[in-house]
Amino acid sequence: PLAHAELERVAKLLEDHFRDMQDLEFTIQRGQLFMLQTRSGKRTGKAMVKIAVDLVTEGRIDKREAVSRIDPAKLDEVLHPTIDPKARPPTAGKGLPASPGAAIGRIVFTANAAQEWAQRGETVILVRTDTSPEDIHGMKAASGILTARGGLTSHAAVVARGMGKCCVTACTSLRVDAAKKTAMFTTPGGKTLKEGDTITLDGSTGEVFIGSAPLVPAQLGSELGTLMQWVDEIRTLKVRTNADTPTDARTARSFGAEGIGLCRTEHMFFQPERIVAVREMIVATDEAGRRAALGKIMPMQRGDFAELFRVMHGLPVTIRLLDPPLHEFLPHSPQEIEEVAKDIGKTPAQVAARVADLTESNPMLGHRGCRLAITFPEIYETQCEAIGAAAAEVAKEGIEVLPEIMIPLVMVPEELRRLRVLVQTAMDKGLAGAKIPYTIGTMIELPRACVVADRIAEHADFFSFGTNDLTQTTFGLSRDDSGRFMPTYLDGGVVPNDPFAVLDPEGVGALIELGVRGGRGTKPDLKVGICGEHGGEPSSVELCHRMGFDYVSCSPFRVPIARVAAARAVLAEETRK
Amino acid sequence: PLAHAELERVAKLLEDHFRDMQDLEFTIQRGQLFMLQTRSGKRTGKAMVKIAVDLVTEGRIDKREAVSRIDPAKLDEVLHPTIDPKARPPTAGKGLPASPGAAIGRIVFTANAAQEWAQRGETVILVRTDTSPEDIHGMKAASGILTARGGLTSHAAVVARGMGKCCVTACTSLRVDAAKKTAMFTTPGGKTLKEGDTITLDGSTGEVFIGSAPLVPAQLGSELGTLMQWVDEIRTLKVRTNADTPTDARTARSFGAEGIGLCRTEHMFFQPERIVAVREMIVATDEAGRRAALGKIMPMQRGDFAELFRVMHGLPVTIRLLDPPLHEFLPHSPQEIEEVAKDIGKTPAQVAARVADLTESNPMLGHRGCRLAITFPEIYETQCEAIGAAAAEVAKEGIEVLPEIMIPLVMVPEELRRLRVLVQTAMDKGLAGAKIPYTIGTMIELPRACVVADRIAEHADFFSFGTNDLTQTTFGLSRDDSGRFMPTYLDGGVVPNDPFAVLDPEGVGALIELGVRGGRGTKPDLKVGICGEHGGEPSSVELCHRMGFDYVSCSPFRVPIARVAAARAVLAEETRK
Repeated sequence: PLAHAELERVAKLLEDHFRDMQDLEFTIQRGQLFMLQTRSGKRTGKAMVKIAVDLVTEGRIDKREAVSRIDPAKLDEVLHPTIDPKARPPTAGKGLPASPGAAIGRIVFTANAAQEWAQRGETVILVRTDTSPEDIHGMKAASGILTARGGLTSHAAVVARGMGKCCVTACTSLRVDAAKKTAMFTTPGGKTLKEGDTITLDGSTGEVFIGSAPLVPAQLGSELGTLMQWVDEIRTLKVRTNADTPTDARTARSFGAEGIGLCRTEHMFFQPERIVAVREMIVATDEAGRRAALGKIMPMQRGDFAELFRVMHGLPVTIRLLDPPLHEFLPHSPQEIEEVAKDIGKTPAQVAARVADLTESNPMLGHRGCRLAITFPEIYETQCEAIGAAAAEVAKEGIEVLPEIMIPLVMVPEELRRLRVLVQTAMDKGLAGAKIPYTIGTMIELPRACVVADRIAEHADFFSFGTNDLTQTTFGLSRDDSGRFMPTYLDGGVVPNDPFAVLDPEGVGALIELGVRGGRGTKPDLKVGICGEHGGEPSSVELCHRMGFDYVSCSPFRVPIARVAAARAVLAEETRK
Repeated sequence: PLAHAELERVAKLLEDHFRDMQDLEFTIQRGQLFMLQTRSGKRTGKAMVKIAVDLVTEGRIDKREAVSRIDPAKLDEVLHPTIDPKARPPTAGKGLPASPGAAIGRIVFTANAAQEWAQRGETVILVRTDTSPEDIHGMKAASGILTARGGLTSHAAVVARGMGKCCVTACTSLRVDAAKKTAMFTTPGGKTLKEGDTITLDGSTGEVFIGSAPLVPAQLGSELGTLMQWVDEIRTLKVRTNADTPTDARTARSFGAEGIGLCRTEHMFFQPERIVAVREMIVATDEAGRRAALGKIMPMQRGDFAELFRVMHGLPVTIRLLDPPLHEFLPHSPQEIEEVAKDIGKTPAQVAARVADLTESNPMLGHRGCRLAITFPEIYETQCEAIGAAAAEVAKEGIEVLPEIMIPLVMVPEELRRLRVLVQTAMDKGLAGAKIPYTIGTMIELPRACVVADRIAEHADFFSFGTNDLTQTTFGLSRDDSGRFMPTYLDGGVVPNDPFAVLDPEGVGALIELGVRGGRGTKPDLKVGICGEHGGEPSSVELCHRMGFDYVSCSPFRVPIARVAAARAVLAEETRK
């Protein structure tokens, strides 16, 4: 009784002193209180936000202190459903936490099955050895994605984060047999799963559970809105989003995105009604054939861009021209090849020969990016005409349009010099006299581009560092293949972090600084951003702030995290001073 | 008559003035001599050397002037056999002159056939639509290589130049049907060739002849020896060779190589009697299995190293530990898979599954180099034990052995720190008490390694820049795939040179300078070399000299070229001063 009053007094004293909720250990012996230990209490993401806001309301800390107490990574819990910590079942397998949140569903082994099951009302989890762009429709239909291979920036991971969908990759103990519709855990006593079995994924830890675990839904309380207002008052770094569709763009805007930093035009090419024309373009062996096919794609792309401009009214939209190796769009199985052949009026042998022709040993380092436009200028010409026409159309509706055209994979200044002329000509043709200001910039995503950035800047209105590719080339590390050995590197402490998750300050960071210095040496006001997956990772966002970036760009669900990280970067800087 | 005496007088005057053989144009009108034009005469490689040496003998120029007049690239003609100009048969087809010299042989259509025929004493020419890394053993076995596709930097071209082997690529009129074992010239009246037919290749012009044309052997006249002496007096840069076999090493030594700068141990793995054990190692799924297979390979590797040490007595031998992705050693066709399965006592399905397991999206950026040893330390352990044992064995014979162990593809200092310990332990075990000094160094072949070279140098006795991989990663350019667009880049003047042929000074060169500065900042006496294909290209050798390298290393046939280029680099420097 007396001790209780004493405890309350001491607890208040300690909480006032530390200005934070305290986790107290004490004992009472013969009516006397003994304090054993005190530390700031552990809390869920939601509690973290609420406590910080409450402490400001109670006048114990100020807004800046509140923001500095937010662990941006923990916001994932606020933005996504999570597994109830009180009822976690035993783990069946473990991979990489590729996209946060939790998901429960019945497993299917093909994108088509995912779509069919989802259409009849099932909640499914797509299980693959690895995903490719052809699986997009199945990934959309699934509530979660599990792959045996890949890494933190493999196709499945990037797409899932973009969709805000739970994903576990590189679950190396899993052997997937899509033909037999089974997935086996190779760990001792590991179970074999069949199509239709239920599993639960924890995308924040990388764990896989058999059966369904109890979930706690996402909890966006009013405190989060208050906190984010303070965050925006503090930060100087802008936060944009990587979004390819109006839906993604809308989500990102609702999370506070201040523009699109990366619209990957290739994702528009995969839609079923378009892929035929795209394949026709690729199989064409001359310019006339390519132009004919591009003529079919252009009106569709124009509609896409127009819709994006509408959603993002008044905010900049950075559109990256076609980047991936063409063969990514081609079919691979004999059955798919036959379908394509029929669609485009060629024999399966002709299509197969063209596919073989386009196959590359190392596609990441192959015929892609602006190399496509140096060899086939008509591809970028068509895209830019569509962008110009869309901008003119939307501007007529009274909407402010701010297009930024971005050219990928530049390695020598001459590429950009030539393509800038090409883009300008095609944009002006598309705009057809409409007075809409637009800029032309480039991705800096190769070490060589960082080294000669001063001369590249002569032809660029902005730089956007593509840190996924820059990490790949700086480390000589394929993000699709690193899953085979990166776990050993991480477990053994050879590297502190997966460089695809956390921007490497010493290597990639040093090259980026070289690039920023070079670019701003030529153009002091050069706008500099980042559009790799790192744009949503807190410590990478802080690094970008320190390096003097104008903005970061990340997938929609990571926008709030990046905003908090950007504000904390300002506070950290003040502390250092 | 009078005019003739006058001409002789003027000619001597001009040759004295220009101190070089002159190519004169003149006319005689009404007995009077009119000189129209004079210029230094065009000449063959052999004449170039002879004239330069003669001019010194005649006292008209000094040795340094003679060396500065040698075009190193023209030495190719002196070093390789050529077709007798007096007896050139009619041309059957024409491609690109991908690697100089001439070759006569019976044609075969697969690498395996090339190897089998060569083993039974036939001289063969390998004819392919295109080559890939899996054809290496066949290319080695062949005396010349002809491809219907590709270009000056396709796989066949680069590898053939490396081997000093005659090669014609992009012979577009040739249709190769490897299954039917025929090759047809599609030109009007073009013949169809069958396996076993004899052809002649001119790698200096790109011509293909049916039947055997008379060859003039390489003409290393006494003048070349004299010139090379002067060259060696002038140059400061050492020239080593890339050699994997005692034969290559012997050739290179006869061309003046001052050591081996790169011995690629993987080439020893491809020999037929070894590949079974290598495949057994790869298919093994645990350490015990790998160790058992490595136990079979070790005595063979030990013998290889011992023989190399003997040939190179008194000169350093740099041995690079295993580098390529493991799957390169695996079979791919169903038939090959079946063979391997039988050899190693597994089912074809098991082998096929393992092959699929090991397949990578971008093997150049995948599980290779020292990453193999971080995950499977037993591989490098076994190799180093074999090297140590071989060194001890040869030293006992009274031969001076100077082993240098080189670790490839280091991206973070921690990799090298760990592997240095591993290498030391295994070497000492192999040496078994023999007192043989050896050094441990690393390849610098990733942009990140250049950036953090200061910290890598803490664990390295030497740096060897691997400019092939460094060019690939700096440019984001696969040398196996760049053939598809590099011709457009070169034709259109987007890049001045193929960066795989001529070291890029602005991009790759800047990173190398960063690496040298970093490394020598930590260790002022750090030995620095280059072992990419650029080590034999004249302008790249000059660049290496300017950057303060200790040595370059190139394929045996390019050693004299590199020596001349190194001497010219000194002369160029003196001129600038």
